Amino acid sequence: MIDVLLLAGGESTRFWPFTDKNLTPFFGKPLLLWHYEQVVRIGVKNVVVVVNSDTKEKIQSVPVPKKLTVSYIVQDGNGQGQAVWSAGASFENRPALILNASDIYEDDLLKSVIETHKKDQQSILVSTVRVTSYFPGAYVKMKEDGTILEMIEKPKEGKEPSDSVTIFVYVIPHMKEFRTALKSYAKRPLDGYERAVNKMIKNGTVAKPILTARQWLYLKYPWHILNVMDACLASIKGQNIDSSVKIGKFVTIEGPAIIEEGVKISEGTKIVGPIFIGRGTIVGNNNIIRQSHIGSNCVTGFATDITRSYIGDNSWFHTNYVGDSIVGQNVSMGSGTVCANLRLDESAITSKVKEEVIQTGRTKLGAMIGDTVRIGVNASIMPGVKIGKGSFVGAGVVLGEDLNDGMYCRFTPTVMISQNSKKAPESRDKFKKKL
Amino acid sequence: MIDVLLLAGGESTRFWPFTDKNLTPFFGKPLLLWHYEQVVRIGVKNVVVVVNSDTKEKIQSVPVPKKLTVSYIVQDGNGQGQAVWSAGASFENRPALILNASDIYEDDLLKSVIETHKKDQQSILVSTVRVTSYFPGAYVKMKEDGTILEMIEKPKEGKEPSDSVTIFVYVIPHMKEFRTALKSYAKRPLDGYERAVNKMIKNGTVAKPILTARQWLYLKYPWHILNVMDACLASIKGQNIDSSVKIGKFVTIEGPAIIEEGVKISEGTKIVGPIFIGRGTIVGNNNIIRQSHIGSNCVTGFATDITRSYIGDNSWFHTNYVGDSIVGQNVSMGSGTVCANLRLDESAITSKVKEEVIQTGRTKLGAMIGDTVRIGVNASIMPGVKIGKGSFVGAGVVLGEDLNDGMYCRFTPTVMISQNSKKAPESRDKFKKKL
Amino acid sequence: MIDVLLLAGGESTRFWPFTDKNLTPFFGKPLLLWHYEQVVRIGVKNVVVVVNSDTKEKIQSVPVPKKLTVSYIVQDGNGQGQAVWSAGASFENRPALILNASDIYEDDLLKSVIETHKKDQQSILVSTVRVTSYFPGAYVKMKEDGTILEMIEKPKEGKEPSDSVTIFVYVIPHMKEFRTALKSYAKRPLDGYERAVNKMIKNGTVAKPILTARQWLYLKYPWHILNVMDACLASIKGQNIDSSVKIGKFVTIEGPAIIEEGVKISEGTKIVGPIFIGRGTIVGNNNIIRQSHIGSNCVTGFATDITRSYIGDNSWFHTNYVGDSIVGQNVSMGSGTVCANLRLDESAITSKVKEEVIQTGRTKLGAMIGDTVRIGVNASIMPGVKIGKGSFVGAGVVLGEDLNDGMYCRFTPTVMISQNSKKAPESRDKFKKKL
Repeated sequence: MIDVLLLAGGESTRFWPFTDKNLTPFFGKPLLLWHYEQVVRIGVKNVVVVVNSDTKEKIQSVPVPKKLTVSYIVQDGNGQGQAVWSAGASFENRPALILNASDIYEDDLLKSVIETHKKDQQSILVSTVRVTSYFPGAYVKMKEDGTILEMIEKPKEGKEPSDSVTIFVYVIPHMKEFRTALKSYAKRPLDGYERAVNKMIKNGTVAKPILTARQWLYLKYPWHILNVMDACLASIKGQNIDSSVKIGKFVTIEGPAIIEEGVKISEGTKIVGPIFIGRGTIVGNNNIIRQSHIGSNCVTGFATDITRSYIGDNSWFHTNYVGDSIVGQNVSMGSGTVCANLRLDESAITSKVKEEVIQTGRTKLGAMIGDTVRIGVNASIMPGVKIGKGSFVGAGVVLGEDLNDGMYCRFTPTVMISQNSKKAPESRDKFKKKL
Repeated sequence: MIDVLLLAGGESTRFWPFTDKNLTPFFGKPLLLWHYEQVVRIGVKNVVVVVNSDTKEKIQSVPVPKKLTVSYIVQDGNGQGQAVWSAGASFENRPALILNASDIYEDDLLKSVIETHKKDQQSILVSTVRVTSYFPGAYVKMKEDGTILEMIEKPKEGKEPSDSVTIFVYVIPHMKEFRTALKSYAKRPLDGYERAVNKMIKNGTVAKPILTARQWLYLKYPWHILNVMDACLASIKGQNIDSSVKIGKFVTIEGPAIIEEGVKISEGTKIVGPIFIGRGTIVGNNNIIRQSHIGSNCVTGFATDITRSYIGDNSWFHTNYVGDSIVGQNVSMGSGTVCANLRLDESAITSKVKEEVIQTGRTKLGAMIGDTVRIGVNASIMPGVKIGKGSFVGAGVVLGEDLNDGMYCRFTPTVMISQNSKKAPESRDKFKKKL
Repeated sequence: MIDVLLLAGGESTRFWPFTDKNLTPFFGKPLLLWHYEQVVRIGVKNVVVVVNSDTKEKIQSVPVPKKLTVSYIVQDGNGQGQAVWSAGASFENRPALILNASDIYEDDLLKSVIETHKKDQQSILVSTVRVTSYFPGAYVKMKEDGTILEMIEKPKEGKEPSDSVTIFVYVIPHMKEFRTALKSYAKRPLDGYERAVNKMIKNGTVAKPILTARQWLYLKYPWHILNVMDACLASIKGQNIDSSVKIGKFVTIEGPAIIEEGVKISEGTKIVGPIFIGRGTIVGNNNIIRQSHIGSNCVTGFATDITRSYIGDNSWFHTNYVGDSIVGQNVSMGSGTVCANLRLDESAITSKVKEEVIQTGRTKLGAMIGDTVRIGVNASIMPGVKIGKGSFVGAGVVLGEDLNDGMYCRFTPTVMISQNSKKAPESRDKFKKKL
């Protein structure tokens, strides 16, 4: 069986306010572990994980399934070419199935690539997908015989050589040769990898496209967590409620659900699946929790509404609306704080990433809140706003722009204080009689 | 049977932010249709509706009950005198029961006027009501024989000729003669009508007052919608819940109710009658909806409190308090937004209409919000404030004054952003243990 | 049986925004009545209450249990020495058990002091407690024989003569003699009392410490009301729910409770004991009321959360969070107003008292709100903030500092109003389909 080369050494700079995208937990398991479990399912025995020096330790702490052997290689420099170059030596001239840890595919695609490789052990295999509008990725230019002539990284819009873009599931049949081809391109972070493939093709290796109809998922920007969450939630079948879960009176639980050990759901609350609620979490009274991922050891407090949102571990809420939002670990919000998720004009929501305004493609998108953030009472976080880890947002703040890591944003309200010339009535009996 | 002349050509300028007061829907039917149904009940066969050129089309689109023939006349100029003048020609010299479309009376009053007319087909009949304090309307000065000597429009306070003011239910026995009398006064928008009656009396026609003990209702200022709503709600007998209505668990429905087809009431909600909920509306979880009129196709969202309020069609809420308020069509409010309905000093609420401060006579009065308004999260709309159609109100705004049509009011909060010298604890286990 | 001299003439200046700390009602009874009932329980027949001229009338209106005779003496000047001097004449040379009305002890301590006095009718008895860190009170310096050599009021930290401080439960065996000793010190408000005891000791009277392990409670600062409340709540055994109480559907009541006559608890609400709810109070729908003292004739409104708080009579709420807070009588809060009870950094909460920043010793402490205060909608009151009686706080205010009696604090938000260049969609059907 082919070994897997899993690229997990990329930086997560566009993923801010979150870090280490490959370690993002879903259902209590870091994304990397989902990859391990997937490759075990399709029969892989060995994985080489390419890490960077910053994340090495955390990645090594991810548990490894029994049936799998994982080794780690620290990559020099940046980019996928460099990553493959760094790891390639350990493959000698064996074949490798190369995957990117921040991309998520269904089992079927990987199985089909492996099947094709078993039948044709000499060709490079490149997974592709058809696009109906411009996509900023690597396009393939085809020969007449249906094999690949050339890969073109990010052609200008209108200059696409075909309607097929590559997705990051490759088979390289002879790693040693490929490494040789990479030699001069490895340090090009953006397209070294594609240039090496092109060179191999020129030197006579056949590169075959494996067209897939499947959509894939990836973590690039922070809001992509919601896409991956949705896919995880969609995989839940039936209601898996641990026997230790305490469910109060007047509670409704509808739809697919995973509710882990020690969870408590208080009176008057409605849970609408698909839903994941991690162990030890306390869902308060009169909540509605819908189509969301709630980490472990959270407390949702009284009358909270969490809808289509991802919540990390140990986060606390109290009478909040958290819609289409992503909340890290150890975050808390004061009573009455709202993460707005829809613009008044209902237009698509943009978000600044590294000074660039990015179209998120979402009409509904709430806040993205890093770890260990504290937000006071009655604050309002505008759609698409990101808050860096360790920051505080004071009571009553209306936050319309991103807030960096480790900042304190205080509301300094303008008030007028004067002698009160008005008098409150001594009694409200006239109102009480009407109740 | 006498024909009805229904004056529906008045402008609705004091009715802002709402338009076309005669078309205001109650229980899904425009007010005009309520008039049609009423006159059918008391036996009338023909109605002539006086419209203006702006509203003609909309008024003609109001459905007409089978037993009624309705014709439309566009009035020239303004005022009731002008309206009667414009319409009078079609009556030849027949009698007419003249009603104002923005006034609402009980069947009994109309029946009693018609009965009197049947017995005395030569006199002008003028409905009157006794007032105990000054009212800015037309007073009657009486002869010793109990007939009317003169009508006096808006006498100065203290100069009232009697304690009886007229209300707009008249019988004119010979319309052709009356039109002649109106000729020179028709263009006086304020008192042409009364002057014509006075002239008729001088010329020998007897004008009899029909005193009624009933209060009548009218739509003049926008808050009057609440009075008419209350009367409509008070007419509901028992619980009329369509068989298609879906009622979730832990729902309480108390008191008289009309709940139309396709309505959904979610778990944990309480409905307190008298209440109308129009077809297709979704009432969310853990709401309280009391003594209100909710239009069709609305969504109330989670944990919303709508109390003694009128809501038009297609409006959306989410964790709002809407008290003693009037909300048009296609309005939405963000989570946490409140329409305050009581001043801190609990004094009567005033509202500016055309630059004049008007006593609304209400201690509890919330917001009046025109069609297609959007309000962000955690906004606060002060008692008696009006918002013009198509306007946006941003998150966190405290709106203490009226906002014109088509405006955008943004909150520009003063905040201070600095490095955060504080640190949030890594764990809240000490708090969680106490839960 | 020994008579009690109960000192209730102290001013309550540090108790602001509340007044007359000895009259603070718990479970509908002023604190003074709790004292009367206690001394009846331990067998006392006569109490002399020292009052001041301002509070005399109110204190005399406190009902007296049948088995007790109470007389009142107006104290001259300030301080406990002056109080005892003023009252002492009525004791002739009888013994007196001297108690402070704003201190609260368990029956056992008083019983044990009385028992000791019965066996030794010549010694002054001084209750003491061991402290493990510096406490700003009167320390005792001991003789070798275990009797008291001297009392030292507020020694400097590090200069304490022992680890025992006195608590205000004294027996003076011969009041006439003591009064003579007090003569020259009575006007020293801070330490006259202790000096007189010291003088008696020098003159040969034995003063014995009665060491107690019990913690005592006292009302000095306003937040101490929460401590006394907690002790009262802890004394509730089982659920004492009056037969007239109306409990709606889907209500949960857990833990010890006193719920008095005429209380109504509406649908979907959870009550968590220990709890006291005074007569005639209406608890609204979908509330959570936890570990709190709710006075009589209150209305909690819809979706309110009152947690670990003391609420006086006749106060109204509506969708509020009131956490670890103290609310006087006839207070009302608008919908969405929050009394925050935890700092963002979760550090201990301080409060200014007479220009001095006092450590409250609490991590969770909300607002302290005097009588007849009105707070508008969506206001935020910061932890530890005090609001003086009769004051108004406007909608949207974030109140971070104390507000004096009789003030009006208005929010004057900065907004920008412009033509609205945006347009709200005519329909939300796309969102409704997903519901």
